[in-house]
Amino acid sequence: MSAEPGQQIRRLRESVARLHAELTRYRLVAWTAGNVSARVPGQNLMVIKPSGVDYDDLAPENMVVCDLDGVVVEGDLSPSSDTAAHAYVYRAMPEVGGVVHTHSAYATAWAARGEPIPCHLTAQADEFGGEIPVGPFALIGGDDIGKGIVETLAGHRSPAVLMRNHGVFTIGRDARAAVKAAVMCEDIARTAHLARALGEPLPMAAVDVDALHDRYQNVYGQRPPSPASP
Amino acid sequence: MSAEPGQQIRRLRESVARLHAELTRYRLVAWTAGNVSARVPGQNLMVIKPSGVDYDDLAPENMVVCDLDGVVVEGDLSPSSDTAAHAYVYRAMPEVGGVVHTHSAYATAWAARGEPIPCHLTAQADEFGGEIPVGPFALIGGDDIGKGIVETLAGHRSPAVLMRNHGVFTIGRDARAAVKAAVMCEDIARTAHLARALGEPLPMAAVDVDALHDRYQNVYGQRPPSPASP
Amino acid sequence: MSAEPGQQIRRLRESVARLHAELTRYRLVAWTAGNVSARVPGQNLMVIKPSGVDYDDLAPENMVVCDLDGVVVEGDLSPSSDTAAHAYVYRAMPEVGGVVHTHSAYATAWAARGEPIPCHLTAQADEFGGEIPVGPFALIGGDDIGKGIVETLAGHRSPAVLMRNHGVFTIGRDARAAVKAAVMCEDIARTAHLARALGEPLPMAAVDVDALHDRYQNVYGQRPPSPASP
Amino acid sequence: MSAEPGQQIRRLRESVARLHAELTRYRLVAWTAGNVSARVPGQNLMVIKPSGVDYDDLAPENMVVCDLDGVVVEGDLSPSSDTAAHAYVYRAMPEVGGVVHTHSAYATAWAARGEPIPCHLTAQADEFGGEIPVGPFALIGGDDIGKGIVETLAGHRSPAVLMRNHGVFTIGRDARAAVKAAVMCEDIARTAHLARALGEPLPMAAVDVDALHDRYQNVYGQRPPSPASP
Repeated sequence: MSAEPGQQIRRLRESVARLHAELTRYRLVAWTAGNVSARVPGQNLMVIKPSGVDYDDLAPENMVVCDLDGVVVEGDLSPSSDTAAHAYVYRAMPEVGGVVHTHSAYATAWAARGEPIPCHLTAQADEFGGEIPVGPFALIGGDDIGKGIVETLAGHRSPAVLMRNHGVFTIGRDARAAVKAAVMCEDIARTAHLARALGEPLPMAAVDVDALHDRYQNVYGQRPPSPASP
Repeated sequence: MSAEPGQQIRRLRESVARLHAELTRYRLVAWTAGNVSARVPGQNLMVIKPSGVDYDDLAPENMVVCDLDGVVVEGDLSPSSDTAAHAYVYRAMPEVGGVVHTHSAYATAWAARGEPIPCHLTAQADEFGGEIPVGPFALIGGDDIGKGIVETLAGHRSPAVLMRNHGVFTIGRDARAAVKAAVMCEDIARTAHLARALGEPLPMAAVDVDALHDRYQNVYGQRPPSPASP
Repeated sequence: MSAEPGQQIRRLRESVARLHAELTRYRLVAWTAGNVSARVPGQNLMVIKPSGVDYDDLAPENMVVCDLDGVVVEGDLSPSSDTAAHAYVYRAMPEVGGVVHTHSAYATAWAARGEPIPCHLTAQADEFGGEIPVGPFALIGGDDIGKGIVETLAGHRSPAVLMRNHGVFTIGRDARAAVKAAVMCEDIARTAHLARALGEPLPMAAVDVDALHDRYQNVYGQRPPSPASP
Repeated sequence: MSAEPGQQIRRLRESVARLHAELTRYRLVAWTAGNVSARVPGQNLMVIKPSGVDYDDLAPENMVVCDLDGVVVEGDLSPSSDTAAHAYVYRAMPEVGGVVHTHSAYATAWAARGEPIPCHLTAQADEFGGEIPVGPFALIGGDDIGKGIVETLAGHRSPAVLMRNHGVFTIGRDARAAVKAAVMCEDIARTAHLARALGEPLPMAAVDVDALHDRYQNVYGQRPPSPASP
């Protein structure tokens, strides 16, 4: 936070470029169809993938810096065609530091049917705190997608939303957390698909979903050093 | 375009050899069953994969140069057994610079049932402009497959056609664009399969499909330098 | 067994860290959701994955050593959030030397429906000796998961149990055997899913299942050197 | 054929060891469950994988040489537990130079239901000349599996047989051809599964299947140098 602004953007360029490798590793994206962005903390800026560039060719240098209206501030390339949606989310949700968009196949299949993914798995309770909701159909190019994302997420604990006939958007406190949500969303969408393909998954009690979500958000992983520690 | 012909062919040999790696990366092909070709611009020639050679062993040197009747002009190996179909497409469609053939599993499953893939996804509207159509059953060895491809594509915006009981052919302005269409075709075929496996995908309005297709073809990706630029 | 204790733990740290690569190789895990542990033979200790650490970053040094009540004995990081379940299994089953937990998709789909996997495959008879059973739903954090695993396995020859709405736990004489059981469990769960998706698998006689299991446990693989050999 | 016998066996050890990498590349096998063998031409011998050894650890040195009754002739390790089935095939079918066994998931799902794979795809007509048949259930350890393979293949053009509740065996003029048949069998089994999952595949005329098979067996790939050529 206290980093010199140029250095901060340099680090985010590197991190955003590198995080796209998780999208290909987990096979969430085909060709160039998926993108990661990060908010530049304390500034009205974000770092985002360039449009239509191969994942193998992404590097810190070719990431694009835009302001939160989607206007390019730094970079020779055009930003992702989903820039308006990312920007809308950053404007509307100050706590969000990263946004990811994919068309990962299982999640997008639920989105094509307009069906939210009901919560039948402890891993879904952990990460999503309940169902993964469906947002409206919206055309690319204006604020409709961003608005649909924000309004749908408002009523849920889920960091992922399935946009109807389209694909997945996820959010996180930083880009890495949003990428994790995209990976887990596809994993959950796949397991839920397989479960339902041969019958009906067993219900989980709402109180158990709450308990799991609360524990995971507060206990899982490594504790960051406390503010008092040197 | 103004390159010396020998150099142009050398570049296309390299590009066609290398593009096969995208077919294996996306698991569109098993063993040696799938091939890429490129038209040599301004000449009555194409560069195509040799028949039955391992993807690991493809190199610029072993690509085969044929004329557009499929007769070998350069190269010690026999060309792909699908050469006649590629050649027919180049003869009939002057705007096509690349052709790809695969038996990718999800797309071929639709082809086995003789069902076109209806358009329920924005990514399909973007790349295919509507349904991905089905062409006739045709035996290999003459012009029947090529004719089936060309006649079926004539009525659609799709750069991909599902040949009945057989597999996929895609076209593009160059070989890379045809490979992209093959990758996206399997991705769409898979998502559409998964969507329909558990219910019915929601319809998309034709006007939205048109708007998406138009935007993607004209706005997506990086703008090439304008003719006036140095 | 006769190794110096410090050296023994060093070897187990290395082996447990390395075995996680099999979970990613076979795509049994997403992000950080899956863990391997090993009992330290002859001591009240186990070696287990740290919580929420990337698989790429696992190394002998960051494995955690706990006692069999789950209390950290060596290591700077918090142990896996599933430590209590691993510890319970080691306390209750002295013959168990390794425990693995995953949410592998096909197996977890059976777990979501609460359906055991019936034995229709020789490979399942070999490794699991019959059906792969389902354990109860249990919340993380106390002894409930461990107790559910132990009580369910008690009635079966299977080294794998599907915990309801949750995932898979497997055991083995060492960590490697437990990892093998996790890999085979997903493979069987997938094949069984595919078989049932298009009809009914044919039954196998119990006497054949017994014969296969007995042979596999006693004849398969390389014979260890006999105790009498030097 | 005219090679010195020791050199011939050395080459086959290398080729058999290396061909197992195709089984893992195409994900036909889990853990150690799948094996390749090659007949030593002109001798009563075969080269086969050792039992229960990791695919990563296979090397020319640890392949096992057995006679065609399955008795080890060269090698310190026990041969594959499927050695008796391989040996039976070599004794009964003198034209066979390679045998492969896998439990690849889609093919094994058809085997679990005891359903042959009907021919709805040109790629299946090419390689298999019609349906892929199902052989009987048979216990490992004697001649029953080998006998089941040979008797089932006798009535078909297919180099692959689905053994009931078990898995796949394929044959070829050499080990590489048998591995190709194993790869194509899973590819066809998967596409056929996907096709049938959403409806009925369209029929192919027997005369077309015959024409495709004949062409593929005689025209596809590179022509070997004619006997008269130097």
